[in-house]
Amino acid sequence: MRTYLSCIQCIVRQSLEATELAGSPASEAEQVMRMVLKRLSETPYDKTPAHMVMEAHRIVRTVTGNNDPYRILKERYNRRALNLFVKMQEMVNASPDPFETAARLAIAGNIIDFGHANTSSDISITSIVDATPKSPLSIDHVRHLEQEVVSARRILYLTDNAGEIVFDRLFIEQIKGRREKVVVAVKGKAVINDATMDDAKQAGLYDIVRIIDTGCDAPGIILDQCSKSFQNEFDAADLIIAKGQGNYETLSSSPCNIYFLLKVKCPAIAVDLGLAIGDIIVKGNRV
Amino acid sequence: MRTYLSCIQCIVRQSLEATELAGSPASEAEQVMRMVLKRLSETPYDKTPAHMVMEAHRIVRTVTGNNDPYRILKERYNRRALNLFVKMQEMVNASPDPFETAARLAIAGNIIDFGHANTSSDISITSIVDATPKSPLSIDHVRHLEQEVVSARRILYLTDNAGEIVFDRLFIEQIKGRREKVVVAVKGKAVINDATMDDAKQAGLYDIVRIIDTGCDAPGIILDQCSKSFQNEFDAADLIIAKGQGNYETLSSSPCNIYFLLKVKCPAIAVDLGLAIGDIIVKGNRV
Repeated sequence: MRTYLSCIQCIVRQSLEATELAGSPASEAEQVMRMVLKRLSETPYDKTPAHMVMEAHRIVRTVTGNNDPYRILKERYNRRALNLFVKMQEMVNASPDPFETAARLAIAGNIIDFGHANTSSDISITSIVDATPKSPLSIDHVRHLEQEVVSARRILYLTDNAGEIVFDRLFIEQIKGRREKVVVAVKGKAVINDATMDDAKQAGLYDIVRIIDTGCDAPGIILDQCSKSFQNEFDAADLIIAKGQGNYETLSSSPCNIYFLLKVKCPAIAVDLGLAIGDIIVKGNRV
Repeated sequence: MRTYLSCIQCIVRQSLEATELAGSPASEAEQVMRMVLKRLSETPYDKTPAHMVMEAHRIVRTVTGNNDPYRILKERYNRRALNLFVKMQEMVNASPDPFETAARLAIAGNIIDFGHANTSSDISITSIVDATPKSPLSIDHVRHLEQEVVSARRILYLTDNAGEIVFDRLFIEQIKGRREKVVVAVKGKAVINDATMDDAKQAGLYDIVRIIDTGCDAPGIILDQCSKSFQNEFDAADLIIAKGQGNYETLSSSPCNIYFLLKVKCPAIAVDLGLAIGDIIVKGNRV
């Protein structure tokens, strides 16, 4: 997916918020802003938004010297999600369709996204969990996905955000119940509030499934920036489950067998998918 | 008031919206975006936000060839406000304090601001009018203003937006009832949805008071960019009533006798005034 012009203001906002989270003095924040604006004025827009976001956050980390400005936010949302874990587990266990319920919860968790939300906002994940069973899917390839999970030889699960990764754990357990060969990928370096290896550990995922990282700081999968070992895992998978907007942005044109699970949170993704903001989807790109 | 870093994303958004309102093809919109980003990366931030906005909208008008992208929106909100005029007039006439009620309505009209609001949003001015008498003023220099209106030799009233200018008419009539020597200023050229001479005519102001224009396309008063005749009117006034954020941004450091009437609509103005978004004020800079 190319970068829409409406993405630019969002990247500008994010850069400023990241700088503020890094606790930078005004002079550094201004330097970040000027460098990001200049880069955005020059970068080709046929690259994905995730490319632009990656470059902006590299500027933030270089200028501020803070390698993970969202760390405290990420830990907070991991904790909050873990506080709901037993409740969510009961929802899945009590459901007549645990696979779909767990998939829906994994999508519900996708709201914990500080690429989209203002970092000063307080995301109420309790109310999201409560609303989950009732929300209709705007694109509903859940049954196709379930069949593919059963028949796949090797599944790669691409996570999105911290906090959300606790929600993913329930769905990954459902997948594992059907097919053991699942590998879960987190980001190789901190970018926005995307989940890294630390978050996989906090979420309790580390003990139940093999975790790899992308070897890269893109908030999505830019394959040529990923480590060779990640590229090999990506090539070896015959089913890829990709969470969130960043993975959609970077993989929507991929020829691989990918199911996108996400909540539509911004106008650019809404236009690209032909959907509305707030819609939730399970979309297979070969269905 | 200097430009805050949080202003930048707003100017980027505005530039894109203005280009879309101008009906420009994607190539022109991208050209506008790149030029605005480059300018924002280079301009000194000790200038006011209104300076930056003026420059951004100059780029929009130059690239798109559309001299007034907000024209239809401005006409729409003039009409909507005029539909409420009789109701508002009755509110003022029935009030035990017509001066304050008219001042409050003038501030209520300040919500019609597409520098702040997304152009796709529908601003409900009916509900604003209904809420007006109940809203407390966070800075309340109404009585000082009323006294100064009575004693002033020459009053200059600086309008802000189209639509809002209909609300201003009620307050200007109250001022005129106390002191005939009032001059009303609109912008010299179209910028965002700021009121120009056309809007003064549509609002029915043209027939009841002398209207001048700033001779300039700044969404505020950048004196050295204004016409000589406007500068003379500005200097001749011993009381200035300045509506809205743009006039506050450009005149908050002025040594002149100015009363700012506005609704706080963005974080930068909130921080600068030490107030919260949504607050309304009548603030004399010498009180």
